[in-house]
Amino acid sequence: MNIEMIRAAAERLRGHTRVTPLLSSPFLDEIAGRRVLVKPECLQHTGSFKYRGARAALSALDPDLRARGVIAFSSGNHAQGIAKAAAEFASPAVIVMPSDAPALKIANTRDLGAEVILYDRATQDRDEIGAALADERGLTLVKPFDEPQVIAGQGTVGLEIAAQAAEAGVREAEVLVPCGGGGLTGGIALALAADAPGLTVRPVEPEGFDDVKRSLETGQIASNAHTTGSICDAIITPSPGEITFPILAALCGPGLTVSDDDCLRAMAAAFTRLKLVIEPGGVVALAAALYQPEALSGDSVIVVATGGNVDAELYAEALARFG
Amino acid sequence: MNIEMIRAAAERLRGHTRVTPLLSSPFLDEIAGRRVLVKPECLQHTGSFKYRGARAALSALDPDLRARGVIAFSSGNHAQGIAKAAAEFASPAVIVMPSDAPALKIANTRDLGAEVILYDRATQDRDEIGAALADERGLTLVKPFDEPQVIAGQGTVGLEIAAQAAEAGVREAEVLVPCGGGGLTGGIALALAADAPGLTVRPVEPEGFDDVKRSLETGQIASNAHTTGSICDAIITPSPGEITFPILAALCGPGLTVSDDDCLRAMAAAFTRLKLVIEPGGVVALAAALYQPEALSGDSVIVVATGGNVDAELYAEALARFG
Repeated sequence: MNIEMIRAAAERLRGHTRVTPLLSSPFLDEIAGRRVLVKPECLQHTGSFKYRGARAALSALDPDLRARGVIAFSSGNHAQGIAKAAAEFASPAVIVMPSDAPALKIANTRDLGAEVILYDRATQDRDEIGAALADERGLTLVKPFDEPQVIAGQGTVGLEIAAQAAEAGVREAEVLVPCGGGGLTGGIALALAADAPGLTVRPVEPEGFDDVKRSLETGQIASNAHTTGSICDAIITPSPGEITFPILAALCGPGLTVSDDDCLRAMAAAFTRLKLVIEPGGVVALAAALYQPEALSGDSVIVVATGGNVDAELYAEALARFG
Repeated sequence: MNIEMIRAAAERLRGHTRVTPLLSSPFLDEIAGRRVLVKPECLQHTGSFKYRGARAALSALDPDLRARGVIAFSSGNHAQGIAKAAAEFASPAVIVMPSDAPALKIANTRDLGAEVILYDRATQDRDEIGAALADERGLTLVKPFDEPQVIAGQGTVGLEIAAQAAEAGVREAEVLVPCGGGGLTGGIALALAADAPGLTVRPVEPEGFDDVKRSLETGQIASNAHTTGSICDAIITPSPGEITFPILAALCGPGLTVSDDDCLRAMAAAFTRLKLVIEPGGVVALAAALYQPEALSGDSVIVVATGGNVDAELYAEALARFG
């Protein structure tokens, strides 16, 4: 895993992924007590950054394997990314999704042309289900984060941040990234280490599901006791990956955690101040920037908003409580 | 009023206004039956395109006059644009706003540093109020649309659309623009006539407030009987301007009108499919593209989403009914 793989992915993604802008609002700056720059990957195709990694992986795959098809496990955004990228290569895609994933994500994945197979998170083993299907149909597994080409694709967010931060005059800042398995966080960290060494990545997780934060503290991969029970389910993984963790350990600052209520509050702020729809798991970094200013340093903070695939009902709740 | 003024405005705005992207969703394409490209000016500074015209006007103003201050009438978005642009030039700004403007717009205008003076739309004459204040304090009036430098600033949206549509491979299409007094519509029409003559502007208005549509049909400036009574109040003006109308008459295709319900429906679609917050008056063009496909021609349609300054309660209603 290295910066050249990220640059190569950026070449392959050119004209397919959107270069998302870097947004800001004086009202958010005021809440945070510093300049807040937001990278809205909710505006990426399929509504999340996951399309970058999916397209990067599909485009790097041997054409014969690609023609047989791919399989992925996902609570939603990786699923949509893979579904779209596979459709673009006319490649069959099977997505194994938890049955409690947001309805919108399941529907979108199907509408994008993938075959969706649901499983029960509590009682079934998705790896077993997936392995059996992959064997039977000769499908290639595209892992959601512990996969070099996926990390390379997500890392293109970092290349864009490096260029856009420089353009905005920001040379030193913390870059807060919503962190599940660490594919996006690791990819961005690698890209920034190469192109913007004054920018330091800090992973952000939901309270009570801080496997990455604890892993960084001890230097050993730690696990979450549970993987459900937060509105940020989409970014909860059992533990950081074997490929991603060493990258995070080498390059990232300390982890941060945020409460579900602060996520709802940040969702309302994104709506009102940025005109953006951000999903709970995608808003954790903005929540940390806005409501934990004392945990951060520097005049500016850069925040990645990873996705916007959220059921309208939950957003309405956020607006009713905090809008 | 000519294309050179728009190009000059673009030079002055460079680095101050955001180049908003051109967004799309396969789900919207499916509803519309053609490719839909959305220019989200809700992501512009202050949450609407109005900042472009405001900054263009302020930057073109004689420095001595600018130092004495500016005054504007606005139901909200022009107000915020002027407030921000004036603050950037350290110029006092007085905004005369109707007392029934959305609370968020009034609050934002004040927070951006302007002095807000409220009047009753039904009983008071804003022009009288404004003229007295302007005289008394030596303020320069910046009109919301019938002002060449404002039209020039709004026209920069058209320059961006011309370049972005070409990049997306779209050479011929209708460009639907939410139309109040015609500053944005006229500016875009002028820019496209110069840079993308295959793109034709069509103004879109709320049903029952179709002064521009009727004016285009007869070739004579027509008026609205009322200027309130729609959720799209923000884009309702008594009639097209004396400067803007001849531009519209020369360059635009026929007008379109949309119902309030279709605006709410389009707001929900923008939320779900584009991850964007669009205000009722700003969504009329998207509503026409999605729900009046038979009124349009061509394989692609370009839609301007003019702003995102909407109270959360109304959005929650749109999501509850159509999300």
